[in-house]
Amino acid sequence: MFLFAEMAPKTIFITGANRGIGLGLVKELLKVSGVETIVAGARNIDGAKELQSLAKSDSRVHLLAVDVANDESITNSVNSVAGLVGERGLNLLINNAGVIEPYGTSSTPNRATVLKCIDVNAVSALLVSQHFLPLLQKAAAKEDGDALSADRAAIVNIGSDCASQALNLRGSGPGNSLLAYKMSKVAMVSFSRSMAADFKNLNIPVLITNIHPGWVQTDMGGSNAEISVDESVTKIVASIGKLNAAHHAGLFNRELETMPF
Amino acid sequence: MFLFAEMAPKTIFITGANRGIGLGLVKELLKVSGVETIVAGARNIDGAKELQSLAKSDSRVHLLAVDVANDESITNSVNSVAGLVGERGLNLLINNAGVIEPYGTSSTPNRATVLKCIDVNAVSALLVSQHFLPLLQKAAAKEDGDALSADRAAIVNIGSDCASQALNLRGSGPGNSLLAYKMSKVAMVSFSRSMAADFKNLNIPVLITNIHPGWVQTDMGGSNAEISVDESVTKIVASIGKLNAAHHAGLFNRELETMPF
Repeated sequence: MFLFAEMAPKTIFITGANRGIGLGLVKELLKVSGVETIVAGARNIDGAKELQSLAKSDSRVHLLAVDVANDESITNSVNSVAGLVGERGLNLLINNAGVIEPYGTSSTPNRATVLKCIDVNAVSALLVSQHFLPLLQKAAAKEDGDALSADRAAIVNIGSDCASQALNLRGSGPGNSLLAYKMSKVAMVSFSRSMAADFKNLNIPVLITNIHPGWVQTDMGGSNAEISVDESVTKIVASIGKLNAAHHAGLFNRELETMPF
Repeated sequence: MFLFAEMAPKTIFITGANRGIGLGLVKELLKVSGVETIVAGARNIDGAKELQSLAKSDSRVHLLAVDVANDESITNSVNSVAGLVGERGLNLLINNAGVIEPYGTSSTPNRATVLKCIDVNAVSALLVSQHFLPLLQKAAAKEDGDALSADRAAIVNIGSDCASQALNLRGSGPGNSLLAYKMSKVAMVSFSRSMAADFKNLNIPVLITNIHPGWVQTDMGGSNAEISVDESVTKIVASIGKLNAAHHAGLFNRELETMPF
């Protein structure tokens, strides 16, 4: 069981936190009582003005330069986060960093474009999860006199309904296609399911799951998107607070309703 | 409708045809009456001794050096296949080339390994499909006085049950994990579904689908695998012969039974 209602995640690391859903999640998580440390990762922290203001006004927020597509940057970030969370370990990793590379059947064939989208959205999230696993295990292994604490570490992938093959025909088409993005997002769900099975085999009490934020008004989602960042992140944070073993390796919407594979 | 029973694909291009399922498919397709030209692609045709023998004994078989992970090699292969099939165009593309890169949660994090598996198995198949689409459309546009002929071009991805999230927990685990392979195979299904939607939007009468060959005794599948190459390829070829619009963008086992996403 991983319930904010009973004990909030003390320590959190989130990638892509400089804008959009990532920034919104930082703000929303700061409202959760019990949250002690939020490490907000961004590729370019110099340009992350709003995040800088947040960090100045709230000592729980720490900015960290991290490029998830760069292995050295990931390993450096592990050391930085380890220093910030100390003996508490890491309760919650949110793989939020992502890109959209428009690509469809009638696009000029371009291997680099497709691979970049998959690399950033899926492979990088996998590598970040692997590299941060020791810190998550450290938090999970804590015994605070609370029977629930052993499971209180989680990886939450900010997923997408584009990961759903059942829903996969939506939004495709020439000129504006999500072909590469869909490949990346379903690969993300795939690694979470393999990792979940490996966690079980290895007796690692870390939960991993995928939450679709909705079609959100961000730089990525565009201004025509259906919901605001606030609408999305309030639901996502509430859903994270309700996560339990039944959500391991699943794909859920922001209200924690099951989405079809 | 794309029915071998009524009219076999005259022209076929298959990747990874030098061994295993690919080689088996070439042999099995040669038994189909009406097949006129099979272009058997392999990365290293000098080492493809059995394929060389086949080509010597059957003039329908043409060897072609192609590395699907190399863009220039793909575009060269399009020119070669175009020359071989001529005005007939290409009736059937089989994306069979693939690799397994063992990888799991407890593997040393290695971006290149994961990306290579996805690049070869999913992105390369996507690029090959894009590059060969004009030749497929050429075959599909033929009017041989047969009402069915307009749809008689297809892309068949040699898929995997590893693409199924529902079945995804099988075979995972430390030391022998299919984590990267699963990411690649589900990404393959994903692009086929996007491409299928784009075909529909663009009025391209080409069928695309995914067939899981089973766990086959090959270099990739290992000697403990459940079925022989013969058992697999006879079923796959029979299933290709039954493909129709209902199979567009699906995931099927070798007997053309629907597999869950």
